[in-house]
Amino acid sequence: MCNNHQHTTISRVLSAPHAKAKFENTTIERRELRADDVLIDIKFSGICHSDIHSAFDEWGGGMFPMVPGHEIAGVVEAVGENVTKYKVGDRVGVGCFVDSCGECEYCVNGDEQYCTKGVVQTYNSLDYDGNRTYGGYSQKIVVKEGFVVRIPDNLSMDAASPLLCAGITTFSPLKHWNAGPGKKVAIVGMGGLGHVAIQFAHAMGAEVTVLSRSNNKKEEALSFGADHYFATSDETTFTELAGRFDLILNTVSANLNVDQYLSLLRVDGTLVNVGAPANPDQYSVFSLIMGRRSIAGSLVGGIRETQEMLDFAAEHGVAPMIEVIDANQVDEAYERVLRSDVRYRFVIDISTL
Amino acid sequence: MCNNHQHTTISRVLSAPHAKAKFENTTIERRELRADDVLIDIKFSGICHSDIHSAFDEWGGGMFPMVPGHEIAGVVEAVGENVTKYKVGDRVGVGCFVDSCGECEYCVNGDEQYCTKGVVQTYNSLDYDGNRTYGGYSQKIVVKEGFVVRIPDNLSMDAASPLLCAGITTFSPLKHWNAGPGKKVAIVGMGGLGHVAIQFAHAMGAEVTVLSRSNNKKEEALSFGADHYFATSDETTFTELAGRFDLILNTVSANLNVDQYLSLLRVDGTLVNVGAPANPDQYSVFSLIMGRRSIAGSLVGGIRETQEMLDFAAEHGVAPMIEVIDANQVDEAYERVLRSDVRYRFVIDISTL
Repeated sequence: MCNNHQHTTISRVLSAPHAKAKFENTTIERRELRADDVLIDIKFSGICHSDIHSAFDEWGGGMFPMVPGHEIAGVVEAVGENVTKYKVGDRVGVGCFVDSCGECEYCVNGDEQYCTKGVVQTYNSLDYDGNRTYGGYSQKIVVKEGFVVRIPDNLSMDAASPLLCAGITTFSPLKHWNAGPGKKVAIVGMGGLGHVAIQFAHAMGAEVTVLSRSNNKKEEALSFGADHYFATSDETTFTELAGRFDLILNTVSANLNVDQYLSLLRVDGTLVNVGAPANPDQYSVFSLIMGRRSIAGSLVGGIRETQEMLDFAAEHGVAPMIEVIDANQVDEAYERVLRSDVRYRFVIDISTL
Repeated sequence: MCNNHQHTTISRVLSAPHAKAKFENTTIERRELRADDVLIDIKFSGICHSDIHSAFDEWGGGMFPMVPGHEIAGVVEAVGENVTKYKVGDRVGVGCFVDSCGECEYCVNGDEQYCTKGVVQTYNSLDYDGNRTYGGYSQKIVVKEGFVVRIPDNLSMDAASPLLCAGITTFSPLKHWNAGPGKKVAIVGMGGLGHVAIQFAHAMGAEVTVLSRSNNKKEEALSFGADHYFATSDETTFTELAGRFDLILNTVSANLNVDQYLSLLRVDGTLVNVGAPANPDQYSVFSLIMGRRSIAGSLVGGIRETQEMLDFAAEHGVAPMIEVIDANQVDEAYERVLRSDVRYRFVIDISTL
């Protein structure tokens, strides 16, 4: 056991030297363990669409070389002297952020994702000391204990990794807007996020309808627990489902015809966006007024809620459908994500790095 | 006492013969009293901006000749044989709608304004028998008992009339989104709706900030109970107030820079629109996601809530600031409303008709 890591750790990584470049297999140094740090030996790292946006610098602010990855599953390899929650050998995960101020009202309430100081993102970010962060396409990572979650025993490590972003991003709004028995919930889009959202909404007890462009994914949607499935390419879908839903969870990042989706909501219903298109959305205020409807957005979830999500997934058998790839297949995987050729999440087997 | 109105009632009215025409002083027939009807001798009728939109046929669907007016205060002149809530001489009001299906879940819950069958509007509408409705710019009106509210004794009849639309339109969302002690509420726009909204939000115990284009109305805003006042023409307003409000009630019908206003909301804050611009609004989904914020809309209020609003106004001294005009001044008043030359609501003295 190596509980006194009085040195930095060399980690092999996949690194993008500049925007849209192919990944290079190289090394970085992880910081010396602080008293409250955990060193994680990463086993699997999911590929999130936002990794591609970042590595392609489509949102601006890209810092290169960049090591993406915020769906991290691994095993504790060492802990700092004050760490109490984890010990060497524990199965753990890390999601989208690795630090927050800890003092603002949102941090205190467990909504660290909305920290007023701004969280430190797992990669492509500066930590509060001004050091660059590098993500999960990596053998090792050092993370503050408070931003590490436990992966329950009966959740496989590879399937757990996408839950750290795709899972919490959908679980949190479903809980916040009270998906549950008696509620009619629609999931828009059936990709990495959507196919997990169906499972969570179903496990919470809601009546789940999937709205997807074509009928291609109908069988799988029903197998994930959807009660109904409608193709949005069929205009009659919007007349048939008018005024139906309490909650619509939109997992699609493209611009929607917002008014059309608002018309599917009941009075007091909410359209929640978890994907963000680059261009503004448009809506008629009448669509909101005529049914006291809301358009909202939601960003991942807090640490406590992420743990709750993993425990819930383990208890209810919620698991992403994944395709495990080798480290040298990431460039190809990005291309396949961009043409929606993935059911439903790529996960990198870090042992191949 | 004339409790058996076995005949129609002739009523003098102000009627617009076609879109944008000057009003004509003429007469219409009101229906025979049904068993559950109340005949009201109208004393005052407020001029709502939506009267102008309707009379100018700016929203389409205008039915002419049109008698606008849905802020009606008067005295009961006769009642149908089954009426139990009101008797001759009672001071009563009528707002934006005069019938609803009574059977859908929203009607049953007292949210008649969202009736799935669609309410019968007080004017420019067809009732469920297919007959045209005519509004409050009129000496008499016949309304079903269930859509009549009681004006409390200590509320003056002229000031009460605008509460039937401007009042309930602002009271309902303030209540629905929990304006009260410990909550920071911003009121955008200080016109007919805004100046009443300030009073309600203040009386509910919220900390009230007014956001108005210029500083012109600051003194009056403070006199209505506002705690703070900021001019939106000053760009520093938006940096100074960033992340401040739990609730923003937008009473302005023009298109806003929605993202700018969303940036003023705290996490979980809501921007509620009660005015509807003719053109779509735009927003960046990021503005919502980054603080789990919502954009919503709200439409007047139910009958029970309208009564609650009047009782609350009477108890807390909430009253619109009005300018009472004669019936022959309505055309001129419309012009003045269009150039915002009114503090803050015109009310027609129906005795001059």
